[in-house]
Amino acid sequence: MTENSTRTGPREHGLQRRAVLAGAATAILTPAAVAAFGTPATAAPGDEDDTSEGETHRITMYAEDLGGGQVGYGLAPGEATIPGPVLEMYEGDTMEITLVNTTEQRLSIHPHGVLYDTESDGSPFNDSFNDPGQTRTYIWRTTHEKSLGRRSRPGSAGYWHYHDHAMGGAHGSGGLIAGLYGALIVRRRGDVLPDHQFTVVFNGMLINNKTAPDTPMFEARLGETVEFICIGHGDLFHTFHLHAHRWANTRTGYLQGSLDSSEVIDNRDLNPGSSFGFQVVAGEDVGPGAWMYHCHVQFHSDGGMAGVFLVRNEDGSMPDGAQAAIDRFHQHEGGHSS
Amino acid sequence: MTENSTRTGPREHGLQRRAVLAGAATAILTPAAVAAFGTPATAAPGDEDDTSEGETHRITMYAEDLGGGQVGYGLAPGEATIPGPVLEMYEGDTMEITLVNTTEQRLSIHPHGVLYDTESDGSPFNDSFNDPGQTRTYIWRTTHEKSLGRRSRPGSAGYWHYHDHAMGGAHGSGGLIAGLYGALIVRRRGDVLPDHQFTVVFNGMLINNKTAPDTPMFEARLGETVEFICIGHGDLFHTFHLHAHRWANTRTGYLQGSLDSSEVIDNRDLNPGSSFGFQVVAGEDVGPGAWMYHCHVQFHSDGGMAGVFLVRNEDGSMPDGAQAAIDRFHQHEGGHSS
Amino acid sequence: MTENSTRTGPREHGLQRRAVLAGAATAILTPAAVAAFGTPATAAPGDEDDTSEGETHRITMYAEDLGGGQVGYGLAPGEATIPGPVLEMYEGDTMEITLVNTTEQRLSIHPHGVLYDTESDGSPFNDSFNDPGQTRTYIWRTTHEKSLGRRSRPGSAGYWHYHDHAMGGAHGSGGLIAGLYGALIVRRRGDVLPDHQFTVVFNGMLINNKTAPDTPMFEARLGETVEFICIGHGDLFHTFHLHAHRWANTRTGYLQGSLDSSEVIDNRDLNPGSSFGFQVVAGEDVGPGAWMYHCHVQFHSDGGMAGVFLVRNEDGSMPDGAQAAIDRFHQHEGGHSS
Repeated sequence: MTENSTRTGPREHGLQRRAVLAGAATAILTPAAVAAFGTPATAAPGDEDDTSEGETHRITMYAEDLGGGQVGYGLAPGEATIPGPVLEMYEGDTMEITLVNTTEQRLSIHPHGVLYDTESDGSPFNDSFNDPGQTRTYIWRTTHEKSLGRRSRPGSAGYWHYHDHAMGGAHGSGGLIAGLYGALIVRRRGDVLPDHQFTVVFNGMLINNKTAPDTPMFEARLGETVEFICIGHGDLFHTFHLHAHRWANTRTGYLQGSLDSSEVIDNRDLNPGSSFGFQVVAGEDVGPGAWMYHCHVQFHSDGGMAGVFLVRNEDGSMPDGAQAAIDRFHQHEGGHSS
Repeated sequence: MTENSTRTGPREHGLQRRAVLAGAATAILTPAAVAAFGTPATAAPGDEDDTSEGETHRITMYAEDLGGGQVGYGLAPGEATIPGPVLEMYEGDTMEITLVNTTEQRLSIHPHGVLYDTESDGSPFNDSFNDPGQTRTYIWRTTHEKSLGRRSRPGSAGYWHYHDHAMGGAHGSGGLIAGLYGALIVRRRGDVLPDHQFTVVFNGMLINNKTAPDTPMFEARLGETVEFICIGHGDLFHTFHLHAHRWANTRTGYLQGSLDSSEVIDNRDLNPGSSFGFQVVAGEDVGPGAWMYHCHVQFHSDGGMAGVFLVRNEDGSMPDGAQAAIDRFHQHEGGHSS
Repeated sequence: MTENSTRTGPREHGLQRRAVLAGAATAILTPAAVAAFGTPATAAPGDEDDTSEGETHRITMYAEDLGGGQVGYGLAPGEATIPGPVLEMYEGDTMEITLVNTTEQRLSIHPHGVLYDTESDGSPFNDSFNDPGQTRTYIWRTTHEKSLGRRSRPGSAGYWHYHDHAMGGAHGSGGLIAGLYGALIVRRRGDVLPDHQFTVVFNGMLINNKTAPDTPMFEARLGETVEFICIGHGDLFHTFHLHAHRWANTRTGYLQGSLDSSEVIDNRDLNPGSSFGFQVVAGEDVGPGAWMYHCHVQFHSDGGMAGVFLVRNEDGSMPDGAQAAIDRFHQHEGGHSS
């Protein structure tokens, strides 16, 4: 398993892109192709009324035992992580996931938000899972918004997630405890593409199956656009709080303009099976520094459900006081057991 | 009490309509009247700016002991069910509920969302309840949106609910455990009328006071529009998840067009006293089959908070594999104790 | 500590205004200035596209031991309350809070929603707190919505809150139990200004650190506009329910017009670290009377998480039956131990 802070950095970000596009029928991974995948935060968006058929992305996922009761998904043998890789599509795209179960337990992959037939349900209920050692292909499709006159039925765009639905029971409770989960993003053509992506999974009393001070430290430079994908799992209720940044309670975290009545929040319920995402500009209007993110249930934050969002200076150097804060966090002064 | 699967089928749907319209001053129950009650999912909507005074619906409800500690509401003697009947109004309508308490305990009916004076509050606090054997009338009114220029105060339209607020304490905790709850829908003129309605009440560790595999199986044919009304009660927190279908987090579950920034979800918090509803087209883009709905809190789904949404073929026949899935569910293979 | 019912009445409302404006560089507290602070509920709104730099409000807050393990914030020595005073700003404004810690414990003030650098974070993590006896200044800034073409990044407007983040641990769990919390409102120019403000904090099994029948009784006259600011703290999950009134699930509780697809609710999750607010017209369409507000988790309402919203007649007199209801509440008939 890679370091917490690297798997969400720029290198990992490139990996995620490759993962998504690797098996696409027509995609070629050039800078131009990557740029076309989304629009930069400062540019005019593309065609939001796009109804193209989309591409088919073919990927292979490996479910691997990571030792210590941990199991992860990865895009290549030996690369499993907790959480698994961020998977991304545009509305209209299809993803074919060939899941290789290298473990000795029954498991599956079940997505939220996207379209699938019963054979790709990922549930024992529909006889849709991988036996130990088995390879099985799951197909996820997506759709555009359907207009019905004054109203419309929603398309597939959203900050979704995927997870095991078969290990240790009918609902994958064993697989979730072990770490078989990850983020799934379906974008609408024209959506903003971030500079960094951070997956935050509140799973029982853990964040990404870690407790403070070993929880992930997310890093960006001042002014970069970062995307948080927040997912809840397990048996407990949680609230996700990010210091000094806020977002709209919408599909994207942005408002649709000055007439959008949506609430703006910096603390949100993050309960089992739910997910949401948003983008913020790192340090915007507040400056660089080490900022906490944590569950706001006091017993949970005191118990280790907290981590660091490090906003570096524009040149990548450490802001004044940031290292001291991180040191306090690691020495448990200012951490959960102070 | 009727079968779970029948009380939400087309027959029951007709009953619900009758219930609502039975006492209306002007309504006559003809096919034309039923059609006028809503617009089909595929038709253009009616006048959404309607501000008519509305009709008065007069119904009699019977609170009845169903044995085994269960108590339900019904629209005729001997017809009490858990949950109670779906009650429906349009904004501007009034409903007069004459509640007959046939039990030996104090109870009441308390609505969410609609308008009522203190005498119809349904709380012991306001001396508003039925003593054992007593008959009492409660009046619920509704209103249209009130424009205040650039903003407006909301009307009554919503997926609401009603419940006891007097049995076993000041807040009806005893009545809720026993099953005294049901769905209340206030529609805005022009809202889509579904082909089927399913009421799902997460109440403690139970769904509609049942545990798997005895939880309700909801049925529709491929392409029919179905409406879920989800209600939370009790002491526990929950999340409602439906496989292979999704909806917008809005008043109706539809989006208001491509500029609507609302989130699209397939998993939502369903906590005590809250309710929401949405419509989906059964099997749209995913095909027919047996799909699970369940609480996504792992301990709860594993403990029996799961059920089946059966999407039949267009001709009403069973889709391939669906009966096998249902059998697994009933044999507890794929069910909560697998 | 003042009476529950007085600190939210008209007198207190004036105090809150003064508190906010006291140190402003340019503000003069005249009736005209107060009137300009917001627009009455019935008047046309101001310029919602305002991008002015805003004012700087300089206030001093005192954290004081109130005995019995309770600690509050106040705007003058000896005036600490639980919850602390409502603090208000407009988007563009800055607030400088000089916090005097008169207690013998480490504490701080940490805001939600607004902008602050790491020195004003209020967390031990960022070495941002008051030692016992220490005075320290925290600076909170706000911003306007930033247009990005078809989308925008949200401004600071919202129903936020502030709380201790340092007493008894890294996350202020001790300070929250003691009562160190309050409401923080950032308005957008043109937002409606209410006649009364009520802060409701669900903190563990308590409301504003009280249990029924000692929970606050909120009072207004029929037709007055009242603003609820609801805040969650502690370790438990809650749902806030208000009888006979409802609001839109938006930034303000109002809808943005007939095309706004937002849900209308009367029951909402209120979990640790979250806050929301809304305005209703007291008794609108339902008449005067004593109305309950309570947590809808049955075990919580039965355990004392309930209070009274008293809507008086227009002339200020008691409505029929209201005193009897309040008496029942206080005699625990209809209260939590009935």
